[in-house]
Amino acid sequence: MTHIRSMLEAYPKEIDDVDLGLLAECISTCFECAQTCTGCADACLAEDMVADLAKCIRTDLDCADICITTGKVLSRRTGFDANVTRALLEACRAACRACAEECEQHADMHDHCGVCAEACRRCERACDALLSTIK
Amino acid sequence: MTHIRSMLEAYPKEIDDVDLGLLAECISTCFECAQTCTGCADACLAEDMVADLAKCIRTDLDCADICITTGKVLSRRTGFDANVTRALLEACRAACRACAEECEQHADMHDHCGVCAEACRRCERACDALLSTIK
Amino acid sequence: MTHIRSMLEAYPKEIDDVDLGLLAECISTCFECAQTCTGCADACLAEDMVADLAKCIRTDLDCADICITTGKVLSRRTGFDANVTRALLEACRAACRACAEECEQHADMHDHCGVCAEACRRCERACDALLSTIK
Amino acid sequence: MTHIRSMLEAYPKEIDDVDLGLLAECISTCFECAQTCTGCADACLAEDMVADLAKCIRTDLDCADICITTGKVLSRRTGFDANVTRALLEACRAACRACAEECEQHADMHDHCGVCAEACRRCERACDALLSTIK
Repeated sequence: MTHIRSMLEAYPKEIDDVDLGLLAECISTCFECAQTCTGCADACLAEDMVADLAKCIRTDLDCADICITTGKVLSRRTGFDANVTRALLEACRAACRACAEECEQHADMHDHCGVCAEACRRCERACDALLSTIK
Repeated sequence: MTHIRSMLEAYPKEIDDVDLGLLAECISTCFECAQTCTGCADACLAEDMVADLAKCIRTDLDCADICITTGKVLSRRTGFDANVTRALLEACRAACRACAEECEQHADMHDHCGVCAEACRRCERACDALLSTIK
Repeated sequence: MTHIRSMLEAYPKEIDDVDLGLLAECISTCFECAQTCTGCADACLAEDMVADLAKCIRTDLDCADICITTGKVLSRRTGFDANVTRALLEACRAACRACAEECEQHADMHDHCGVCAEACRRCERACDALLSTIK
Repeated sequence: MTHIRSMLEAYPKEIDDVDLGLLAECISTCFECAQTCTGCADACLAEDMVADLAKCIRTDLDCADICITTGKVLSRRTGFDANVTRALLEACRAACRACAEECEQHADMHDHCGVCAEACRRCERACDALLSTIK
């Protein structure tokens, strides 16, 4: 997360519309969750029982795409738009929650689903915490 | 848009949770809007008055990322999740509206902003129409 | 493809480093292929024999990601870099070829693989044609 | 990087076609570089002298898109394709090098370009190291 803080601190104008700690945490968990969901979808594909994991794979793919986009949008500070940011954070929180709930059902059978569920819950909480500060 | 319809019609299971015409239109406008916003951000960068277009570029970049993700999520039918889809469509509609409003302010000076504003309004309407059918 | 041409023609500076027709065709097929591969991966997930389609799904997902990135990079004209463009077009051509070869093996059983293989071949040819013009 | 290793170790089949340490390092630097380039493009947009940074912004945007795609493709192990992986790593290395060279020119004036150049060089080296092991 060091590079995320370094970039936020190198931004040429003052950032006073958001809590920097919550923002950095949310960006970090978005990228982490995107990578983990991408890996979980792929690991599900390699399971013998892949036919039972179709919904899990789909939920992983959606969550990965939405988390990357959210992480990119949050990384931008110029011309901040509270409405777009809030709506996207709500979509990201919903995707992380849906993916966590799906993966938690297979976590005892598949380690990758356990790791993925934890990353989704961290990102869900970070989106939730950041949302509560955006007016 | 032919390929979008062809793929939806080749889906191996019945699709009865959504209007196929509205879905195909929304996927089509999402990809079109993403391409147009990517081009508009780049054209703004090439303008002599780029310093006055910083907010426009940022709004374009957000809209492009959100539209691509929405187009991809809508292209998936397996394990459909109404909550995630609805939240993402709301974020996409908000991003398209914000980008259209921004580009419309420069449309008489910059042709690319005019073309972009139209693509954003088409995508905003398509998201809105699809949203009204998702319970 | 109308919007792609409109945006290229609205670019504020002269574009003399590339053939506009080949460029617009390549951008168009990249976005089309990305959408089609996303849909094909999802349709494969819904097949009863999904276990036999794991490699097809993975190839689809790679091809979708690479095509979107290529379509976005090609949509930018400011600060054109021939080396990056050439290397990315080569990667996109390789991904499209690999995905077409994979999908063609299932095209008689699965209509979505047939539609996808055609989109991949169109994009492969467009990348190849554009590559031959970039010094 | 902990989550990247955890996911690779949770993969259900043996991974013997690649060095896991180099792979994890490359995935990690790809996601880090994508976030940093996204932030650098945005920070450039907020500079008073943005007109002089147009090429830097464009190079940042390309590098961010290519790094994310490379990070996602490398996170997939099922149905590994050496040709596609190699071509994409070459494109990613070229994009990181181009972005590092551009940012290094402004690193003494803009801290964000300095941070970004370092992330690009790390990712360039990680792509290079991984490439040398893929036959």
